[in-house]
Amino acid sequence: MKRLFIASNDAARIAELFRSELPGHEVLTEPLEGGPPVSYAVVGRPQPGVLAGLPDLELVLSLWAGIEHLLALREIPDHVPIVRLVDEGLAGGMADWVLAHALAWHRNLGLYRDFQAKREWSPQQEKLARERIVAILGAGALGTPVAEHFVRFGFQTRVWSRSGRAVAGAQSFAGREGLPRAAADADILVNLLPLTPETTDIVDARLLAALADGAFFINGARGRHVVDADLLAALDAGHLSGAALDVFRTEPLPADDPLWQHPKVIVSPHVAAPTHPAVAVKEVAESIRRFERGQPLPNTVDRSLGY
Amino acid sequence: MKRLFIASNDAARIAELFRSELPGHEVLTEPLEGGPPVSYAVVGRPQPGVLAGLPDLELVLSLWAGIEHLLALREIPDHVPIVRLVDEGLAGGMADWVLAHALAWHRNLGLYRDFQAKREWSPQQEKLARERIVAILGAGALGTPVAEHFVRFGFQTRVWSRSGRAVAGAQSFAGREGLPRAAADADILVNLLPLTPETTDIVDARLLAALADGAFFINGARGRHVVDADLLAALDAGHLSGAALDVFRTEPLPADDPLWQHPKVIVSPHVAAPTHPAVAVKEVAESIRRFERGQPLPNTVDRSLGY
Repeated sequence: MKRLFIASNDAARIAELFRSELPGHEVLTEPLEGGPPVSYAVVGRPQPGVLAGLPDLELVLSLWAGIEHLLALREIPDHVPIVRLVDEGLAGGMADWVLAHALAWHRNLGLYRDFQAKREWSPQQEKLARERIVAILGAGALGTPVAEHFVRFGFQTRVWSRSGRAVAGAQSFAGREGLPRAAADADILVNLLPLTPETTDIVDARLLAALADGAFFINGARGRHVVDADLLAALDAGHLSGAALDVFRTEPLPADDPLWQHPKVIVSPHVAAPTHPAVAVKEVAESIRRFERGQPLPNTVDRSLGY
Repeated sequence: MKRLFIASNDAARIAELFRSELPGHEVLTEPLEGGPPVSYAVVGRPQPGVLAGLPDLELVLSLWAGIEHLLALREIPDHVPIVRLVDEGLAGGMADWVLAHALAWHRNLGLYRDFQAKREWSPQQEKLARERIVAILGAGALGTPVAEHFVRFGFQTRVWSRSGRAVAGAQSFAGREGLPRAAADADILVNLLPLTPETTDIVDARLLAALADGAFFINGARGRHVVDADLLAALDAGHLSGAALDVFRTEPLPADDPLWQHPKVIVSPHVAAPTHPAVAVKEVAESIRRFERGQPLPNTVDRSLGY
């Protein structure tokens, strides 16, 4: 019997779910004196010191897709693999959320809301999806299904990633030199990158300037990908028509942040790709079973890449 | 050289497009005395008497998908085929528009807009697409691609039509007796039916009562499908959480209509599946070429069915 330690919000509920998924393991939410050492840590955003206090860890399992905060802690020894959660809820939820904002912008729902408030019947010449260019940053477990949805709606779809990974029906762009070409004249820019030293501040004045006039920006990844001052300047200059932001440099977004009340900014409270406990626990338990059978673990973090 | 007559809004622009698509034909926007009779009428919503004044018509080509107003005119002899326009703009535009509203509701965008106005960081437990049931009325050129998108996002998707036509990944329901089963406990109801005597007033108190509490209704078809008083009653009773309506019994929607200012109703001015002149003209010109080569015409109206 191995011990599994939960360091996350909602730990009691998650522990219950693990007890029924892995009945042969002992599931703890508080460190226990005596008995076997803790082999597995299931973590959201653990407090500093928690993981350092578990010296016999064999495996760390994140309940989130983004794990940059775990690497920043520097408490997980190099030989201990970290597995990211990339479950149906995360990938599917992100796709729902990105397409909701992209299609709402594409079909002028905000404009018609304003007309409705004035009881004004004012049809616009609507554009076809194939008249719009969408650039997606990130071709991983989140970016790929999102790109596939855009392709199926008929948008001109581009995907940019470090490696230039292909998505059927989309144009691929790779590396730093491919970035301005991926963004050139795009009407919608979607950020779904992992946060690494290379991608921090990647959405800056230069990248935003490459977009088409009146473009829309959607951020479902991390606040630190974006230089907020550059984003606000592009919105205020009228170069961007709007932005839907789910993630911020500081979360919760401070009450005095200008993003809250900017008329072109749509704020949501980090809900784009929510973790659904029941789905997440099934996925994590399966990773533990694979680990114990000596099978390869999908979604293991490559520390040299940072994701 | 055959004569083609345009009876539509924006006739001059549409005529220009036809002149370059069909250079061997004469394209008129006003009836001409003398010369050959008019063989083809390309119509939007023609004034009464216009088609009756063209006794030598061989073919009527609608610029719209809905043609119930042409049948109601009773000016097109039974032997003259009517071809509906089902182009990429119509089907693709409808899919964009329906999914924009469905995903925006599914992901609580309106709720987060209200929170943002109060600078309130208030994440909700978001539902997965597979926890929602979507019922689509209509399995034709509009309903089928819309259903396919819902299936790909992972929604539990049901399609109801007269004949019970199948859509991969969705449950099919047929005929009057299948209607309450298709709607039972659905979270989203989407109407994409043709307007016929059988489908007029189909969205009534009984159908709405079958939906799940808090359901959302999307109408992209015709205003006369809906009993407005029943819809308003279901919204006011709290049984429905909202409705996105693009079509109305009277269009433009009269300024004193209660739908304009109802807090749960989203009004748009009949823009869901817009006709894009360039795309539509290519499609109609191809129908004329097929007709002249004696080939079968897709999307010919079956007058016994009314669509």
